[in-house]
Amino acid sequence: MSTENVDKFLDHIEKHQDSLVERLRQAVAIPSVSGDPAHRPDVFRMGEFLVKELKNLGASVETRDPGEQDFHGTTLKLPPVVLATIGTDPAKKTLLVYGHYDVQPALKEDGWNTDPFTLVEDEKNRLIGRGSTDDKGPILGWINVVEAHNKLGLELPVNLKFCLEGMEESGSEGLEAIIHQEADKYFKTVDVVCISDNYWLGTSKPCLTYGLRGVSYFHLTVEGPKADLHSGVFGATIHEPMTDLFAIMSQLVEPNGRLLIPGIYDLVRPLTDVEEKTYENLDFSIQDLHDAVGNEINLHNTVRDTLQHRWRFPSLSLHGIQGAFYNPGDKTVIPAKVTGKFSIRTVPDMEIPIVESLTAKYVQSLFDKLGSKNTMQLKCTHSGDYWLASPDHWNYVAASKAVKKVFGVMPDLTREGCSIPITLTFQEALGKNVLLLPMGRGDDGAHSINEKLDRSNYVSGTKLLGTYLYEVAASKGE
Amino acid sequence: MSTENVDKFLDHIEKHQDSLVERLRQAVAIPSVSGDPAHRPDVFRMGEFLVKELKNLGASVETRDPGEQDFHGTTLKLPPVVLATIGTDPAKKTLLVYGHYDVQPALKEDGWNTDPFTLVEDEKNRLIGRGSTDDKGPILGWINVVEAHNKLGLELPVNLKFCLEGMEESGSEGLEAIIHQEADKYFKTVDVVCISDNYWLGTSKPCLTYGLRGVSYFHLTVEGPKADLHSGVFGATIHEPMTDLFAIMSQLVEPNGRLLIPGIYDLVRPLTDVEEKTYENLDFSIQDLHDAVGNEINLHNTVRDTLQHRWRFPSLSLHGIQGAFYNPGDKTVIPAKVTGKFSIRTVPDMEIPIVESLTAKYVQSLFDKLGSKNTMQLKCTHSGDYWLASPDHWNYVAASKAVKKVFGVMPDLTREGCSIPITLTFQEALGKNVLLLPMGRGDDGAHSINEKLDRSNYVSGTKLLGTYLYEVAASKGE
Repeated sequence: MSTENVDKFLDHIEKHQDSLVERLRQAVAIPSVSGDPAHRPDVFRMGEFLVKELKNLGASVETRDPGEQDFHGTTLKLPPVVLATIGTDPAKKTLLVYGHYDVQPALKEDGWNTDPFTLVEDEKNRLIGRGSTDDKGPILGWINVVEAHNKLGLELPVNLKFCLEGMEESGSEGLEAIIHQEADKYFKTVDVVCISDNYWLGTSKPCLTYGLRGVSYFHLTVEGPKADLHSGVFGATIHEPMTDLFAIMSQLVEPNGRLLIPGIYDLVRPLTDVEEKTYENLDFSIQDLHDAVGNEINLHNTVRDTLQHRWRFPSLSLHGIQGAFYNPGDKTVIPAKVTGKFSIRTVPDMEIPIVESLTAKYVQSLFDKLGSKNTMQLKCTHSGDYWLASPDHWNYVAASKAVKKVFGVMPDLTREGCSIPITLTFQEALGKNVLLLPMGRGDDGAHSINEKLDRSNYVSGTKLLGTYLYEVAASKGE
Repeated sequence: MSTENVDKFLDHIEKHQDSLVERLRQAVAIPSVSGDPAHRPDVFRMGEFLVKELKNLGASVETRDPGEQDFHGTTLKLPPVVLATIGTDPAKKTLLVYGHYDVQPALKEDGWNTDPFTLVEDEKNRLIGRGSTDDKGPILGWINVVEAHNKLGLELPVNLKFCLEGMEESGSEGLEAIIHQEADKYFKTVDVVCISDNYWLGTSKPCLTYGLRGVSYFHLTVEGPKADLHSGVFGATIHEPMTDLFAIMSQLVEPNGRLLIPGIYDLVRPLTDVEEKTYENLDFSIQDLHDAVGNEINLHNTVRDTLQHRWRFPSLSLHGIQGAFYNPGDKTVIPAKVTGKFSIRTVPDMEIPIVESLTAKYVQSLFDKLGSKNTMQLKCTHSGDYWLASPDHWNYVAASKAVKKVFGVMPDLTREGCSIPITLTFQEALGKNVLLLPMGRGDDGAHSINEKLDRSNYVSGTKLLGTYLYEVAASKGE
């Protein structure tokens, strides 16, 4: 590895950090809210901004059109997927970088202290603005790396490919098909993938993320009367759908968080000593959980148990009921048809069809026990598989070395409890190792008010991404 | 009793029934929807219509102003309570008649076959229109009785007092205070009360109604996180309010309708042989229940069990949840604060404070067992007591004799499962016997589309009300 080049790069970033912040300011100023039709032109504008930046840096840029979207009856054009290539040297490894240029909605009235689309740096050097950390900062991080090399007259140590979408915050519509279509074409030469779209576990230590839980969402419908009934007239004379629904849903999970579906824990991959070790010295405390939740309602008393239940054990949450009374006040109705909503977070090796069938069998047995004359139906409305990469892969080893070099510490090895479906899509479509390499901190408030990216995370994150390229290049790739 | 006068009266009603229908047509044409501010002037107009009718018949009419109403932030004037007196002969008994001149909302678009405010008589001689049976037909029944006597030159056998309100469909705002205020004044001479604002049990046999269930409404709130949380990030790591709520609410009532609150059935008055007999030969079948519900989901297989559970045993219904996800689709949220709504229908001798305290104690014990770190609060948001009159009272005996005379059968003795709070108010404020003497049939669809009153019920009902006056007069009053 050219240590000299890395040092030049690191020095350049440190010295030019204000121009990096200026680039982020320009990007945040474009309110590319994918979930709001009024802002759809801004999402396109943000795509054009990135195309221009990439072209200016010498990238060869193409776009793919994901087509149209039905937005509550209105047809909207989907913003382009931006594909860019920098370097095609067959002697170098090729890294695919994914990011998204759309953002969550944000209004000053939501409680922001400042205008969400004007980047503001506060007294703690936090860069505050919608999209700062999710995901404009990380995307620009890669662009900053390329720019620095151009200005320094240095060649990039790897070939880079970009895949940037504008619909991530709205379900990544159309992207999955494009990835599969391009797997043997545009993405054919890719060796490994890096996604910077999640967060450090805490606020002080970088991490590499190698696993995500899957999710299966269920609708449990109980139906009886033809229409809602008066509880005074019919109470205690008919089978009430709500009573049946509560009887079943109360038997899905214990108040201590343990799933009651027979056989479900038999599917969970046993903890190994090696994995157990990754739960030591993590940048996380029970106080962090209390802070995030705003109350001391932790189920587990240790970081180890807490994070294992977030990352590598299943969970089941009850979300709500459709068809029942939900307004303030009192209403004495017997709802005729109610649909309870719950979801199961899945982990290795819980295969979706088995989870679905164990759940269906158990729910049916609970309903049968009720002796109800109502009808019951369970439907799995969507399922996304868990994702697990090997943190021993050279891609992770390279990233670890880069973290050590830039931050002076070894990164935490983390998973996340939620799903980022595109991660699994890349792994399955390309058959390559995928690394989640976050730039922001755990308290960035990605989807909340006053979203921020610390200046130090943005600057050091850019350094990390660049250094990682050198480590990837230096790796024997085995 | 003057059989001759009764016969003249019955004959007059039979011969002039078309003019009775015409009066109902005029009343239905006034859309006195108390729940719709746009129709508030029509409610006042309906009040004036009745004042005019009563004055034309020689009644001495006064009104009481219940004041103003806060309708979702708008101040609305409440329609007057119309008090009318016909006859003040101290030698005669005095009967207080209650009715309401407002109606439920109705729009053609709701599914009415005809304009709701144009009375239409169909091929089965059903008088279709909003308010026909609830409660304009019964109010006009009394007026028809007075008019017939005036035209026949006959004296009424009793003194009549009217209490007609215009807010019954919207909570009878202001009425209770007026009844208490006038108990020793305007209502001082009242001997018994008759309310015609409910329905026959079935469609072929009149009934007298002597009992109503009470209702206590509860809000059960479980609160944990400061804000809604992502179930992927927090599932299985914190105490989820929904899990706690379902655990408690599923333990309130069994799917077979039996309440699980310890001690609650000890409060229920035992069935006597005398009462048991009133459940024989009722104009009701399990098929009627199936028809009303639109599905064969009966808990009990006999009319006796079904009606006893509707009328004289408690019930507990789960109505819904405030604060949880209720829309169509999928949302993977852990709600931070959820309020489950349920109500208990109460019967003799379930006293409200005891019901509340047994429920509170039981819910607390269920919550304690969960070992949850969330907080729980149970609140009784409103309570209305059950009402039970003695069907042996001379007021009921008089009504029975009148039914026998007009219809040729003895009436069913019924209760209802729901509450009509004003019934209890009259009984308590005046300390007099209250009789519910319905005019319409069980299938009139009082609050539904195509509300109707059969012509025969309107005409025979008018005959019944008049004949009842003679039986009241003839009763020894003991």
